[in-house]
Amino acid sequence: MSLKKKPVTGMKDISPREMEIRDYVIQLIKETYGAFGFSSIETPCVEHIENLSSKQGGENEKLIFKILKRGEKLKLDTAETEGDLVDSGLRYDLTVPLSRYYANNANDLPSPFKALQMGNVWRADRPQRGRFRQFMQCDIDILGEPTILAEIELILATSTLVGKLDFEGFTIRINDRKILKAMAKYSGFPEESYDLVFIILDKMDKIGMEGVAAELEKEGFGKECVDRYLELFEGVTNNLAGVRYLKEKLAGVLDEKTAEDMETIIESVEAVKTADFKIVFDPTLVRGMSYYTGPIFEISIDGFGGSVGGGGRYDEMIGKFTGNQTCACGFSIGFERIVMLLLEKDYQIPAKKGKTAFLMEKNMPKEGLLKIFKEAEAERSQGKQVTVAVMKKNKKFQKEQLTAEGYTEIKEYFNR
Amino acid sequence: MSLKKKPVTGMKDISPREMEIRDYVIQLIKETYGAFGFSSIETPCVEHIENLSSKQGGENEKLIFKILKRGEKLKLDTAETEGDLVDSGLRYDLTVPLSRYYANNANDLPSPFKALQMGNVWRADRPQRGRFRQFMQCDIDILGEPTILAEIELILATSTLVGKLDFEGFTIRINDRKILKAMAKYSGFPEESYDLVFIILDKMDKIGMEGVAAELEKEGFGKECVDRYLELFEGVTNNLAGVRYLKEKLAGVLDEKTAEDMETIIESVEAVKTADFKIVFDPTLVRGMSYYTGPIFEISIDGFGGSVGGGGRYDEMIGKFTGNQTCACGFSIGFERIVMLLLEKDYQIPAKKGKTAFLMEKNMPKEGLLKIFKEAEAERSQGKQVTVAVMKKNKKFQKEQLTAEGYTEIKEYFNR
Repeated sequence: MSLKKKPVTGMKDISPREMEIRDYVIQLIKETYGAFGFSSIETPCVEHIENLSSKQGGENEKLIFKILKRGEKLKLDTAETEGDLVDSGLRYDLTVPLSRYYANNANDLPSPFKALQMGNVWRADRPQRGRFRQFMQCDIDILGEPTILAEIELILATSTLVGKLDFEGFTIRINDRKILKAMAKYSGFPEESYDLVFIILDKMDKIGMEGVAAELEKEGFGKECVDRYLELFEGVTNNLAGVRYLKEKLAGVLDEKTAEDMETIIESVEAVKTADFKIVFDPTLVRGMSYYTGPIFEISIDGFGGSVGGGGRYDEMIGKFTGNQTCACGFSIGFERIVMLLLEKDYQIPAKKGKTAFLMEKNMPKEGLLKIFKEAEAERSQGKQVTVAVMKKNKKFQKEQLTAEGYTEIKEYFNR
Repeated sequence: MSLKKKPVTGMKDISPREMEIRDYVIQLIKETYGAFGFSSIETPCVEHIENLSSKQGGENEKLIFKILKRGEKLKLDTAETEGDLVDSGLRYDLTVPLSRYYANNANDLPSPFKALQMGNVWRADRPQRGRFRQFMQCDIDILGEPTILAEIELILATSTLVGKLDFEGFTIRINDRKILKAMAKYSGFPEESYDLVFIILDKMDKIGMEGVAAELEKEGFGKECVDRYLELFEGVTNNLAGVRYLKEKLAGVLDEKTAEDMETIIESVEAVKTADFKIVFDPTLVRGMSYYTGPIFEISIDGFGGSVGGGGRYDEMIGKFTGNQTCACGFSIGFERIVMLLLEKDYQIPAKKGKTAFLMEKNMPKEGLLKIFKEAEAERSQGKQVTVAVMKKNKKFQKEQLTAEGYTEIKEYFNR
């Protein structure tokens, strides 16, 4: 019987050209974070359905690919709900597995634990252009480091990585959930409405200061409160001076240590950075996940809308999963976005030692074959990529194909 | 709520130490086959349930992790069988996906197409020591090359790979399904019983020549026929002379080209090989899969029972899947076995440029921090791995831990 040729809905076959880019970026990630002392770990793609449905996964819990029980455990006659049929599912992120991994292996792991995870995740999202139901996530986390050492190392390592990808330039924006909260408190918003205020603030880059003001008032917040809030944003600048301004202005509301830590992070990154990028203090940066507890950051490629990575400190989440309080700080790299950007600009992977194709006439006798294979081996031992192929009738077309595959040299061998 | 800490039954969390080995082997595989002109491809881990149940997967089709339909498509009330509930499953090998990939993308692929696939597969096998329900497969295939060029390149590339892994020595055994069949025909076995004869022959290394004879007779094959068969095996040697002996002996039954090709493969590999290994002609080599149509081979590490890879020519299978006849030859590397062997002998990955840990006293002031990060960056830029950590109360234990993690140098920084 014949196969269904297309991949399942929303997933894709990956071409040699895209794989080349993916492998290159994967290797760069492993190397770069390795240089900063991060260790790779891996967890199974399949997780207990209970762990995936713990309510920490938010909207993603609605998008789980669920796996049917097997053998005697599957009781089709008596099953009443979906829950009776399944015992596991494909992971929708790497955070739940990391928490489980840490709970399962903490005794064997160093503290702090600097973890690099790269792996596929699955979400049964509505398929749309450039968005797939299987995609690679790349998470870098430091567990058990309470100081800003974690933030600084994460930002330095990540900017080193992005710097190697030859984009024109990039920007890291940084804020702190504690600064966000202090600004809201100072302005007089009630604590229970902070999340709503931040959701509106997050639209600043789209609807501007006035838009934010209008939406806040529409939600019923007092004009005085909204004005006080906007005045703060008007007074602040995107640099160290901005941090210092808020430190003074929010005295008594914002812990001084929070502002000083922010200064130290920015100054350290500025002093040590090896790539060409800007680190800016951005008090309007919110990041959606409400589990962040301290500094938050986002990285974007100049001239391209949207972020290619982000993260922050989340000192409470792992404890919620595992029952053991564990401070944590992490960065998530937008692997698929980076690959897409590199493909779009037809990125050429730097400095390979050359690709040669050996074309040999049909029915080459044994002596000729041996000679060809020896010559191929000699080139390979110098680090070149060599493919050996039989000459085709339409040699011109064959050569064009090889050139398109990146073979820069083509050698021909004929029967004597 | 607390998570279930253990991975799902039969799957495992992978430690930093094992990941180091895995990443190293993956990189070596990509590099080595890359040097021979192979391109990486990838397919989704999820496949159409129809493709997984096409009867080409044999026993593996009983071990599928099946995925529940989602949304409106899942009709729990009216479902009568498992088939009504599922639309896809996790792949159990890389062969079905390769066939689908080739059918889907052939127009964009070069011919011949030299493909490297590395990816996880899943089988709901009974869990047992060293065998997992999620494991990595590594398949290398040449599609569309009808000559022994494919066999030679596959064996050369694979032996180059294994040679880089510093085992004491290894052996490649080679045979041809056509020689197997000619030997059975010459001896007078009826064609419909070849598969049974080969299953018994396959036990030669365990039960010896006499054991094979006894089992064949027990199955009711005539003594004359069995004697003739064994006589052939007694006369043959494990080298080129053995191939030539069979070429003469089987004249009229075995196509001369088959024997000559075998000679050319062995001679070419002997002449060009870069690693220290033996290639031996083994007329008792069967390999289980009956889809092989020509040369078959298996690779084993000396002093370790069992193979770490094998393959052969399968000119008919892809056509059965796709409806388009496509000749093919492939090698499957026992990735998990190789990793296990390297872990067991506590393999040290060659030549890294050193790992340094910077330990700094608690509450390091900003100036000190900047100095430390700059020094760390200087070492990283020389290719070293550097981790920065806060000094702990029990510094002795902390240093022991870092040493165990492979940090050979530890520098200490104190507040002034």
